[in-house]
Amino acid sequence: MNILAEIIGYIAGICIATCFLPQTLQTIKTKNVKDLSLISYIIYCTGMICWIIYGIYLNSLQMIIFNLISLYFAATILFMIIKYRKNH
Amino acid sequence: MNILAEIIGYIAGICIATCFLPQTLQTIKTKNVKDLSLISYIIYCTGMICWIIYGIYLNSLQMIIFNLISLYFAATILFMIIKYRKNH
Repeated sequence: MNILAEIIGYIAGICIATCFLPQTLQTIKTKNVKDLSLISYIIYCTGMICWIIYGIYLNSLQMIIFNLISLYFAATILFMIIKYRKNH
Repeated sequence: MNILAEIIGYIAGICIATCFLPQTLQTIKTKNVKDLSLISYIIYCTGMICWIIYGIYLNSLQMIIFNLISLYFAATILFMIIKYRKNH
């Protein structure tokens, strides 16, 4: 069970790290951000920053790395929402 | 530092739980899902399910509750993406 639980934890981390990659690519391509919620991405990025700080406190390198990757994509989307909203 | 770290962990959990509430409300209101990435929400929901299983393994009630709430909103958005895409 221990190894299985660790594998599930890793899958969760990888999902969180990569989940916003498709959204990032789609938004880069289309530049359409009308249907995306600015507030949702602000809250998500705040959460990720808090997780990273918490990961540093726990000395958990996986937690820091997975959440840093997720923050990178979410912050990119957030940046595009602000940028492309102004243009329209 | 211990209490501060726990508070930051709680803020992170609350952010993850609530981040997709504004997106859910916006999508319910507009019914526009064109700019939302289906794959992103599939990966995110998979990640949340894995976190919940991992939370059960760790006996962490906070982890289970925060991620269940997040899964609820993300799954609602996922459902709307599939539903409203078909309609257009």
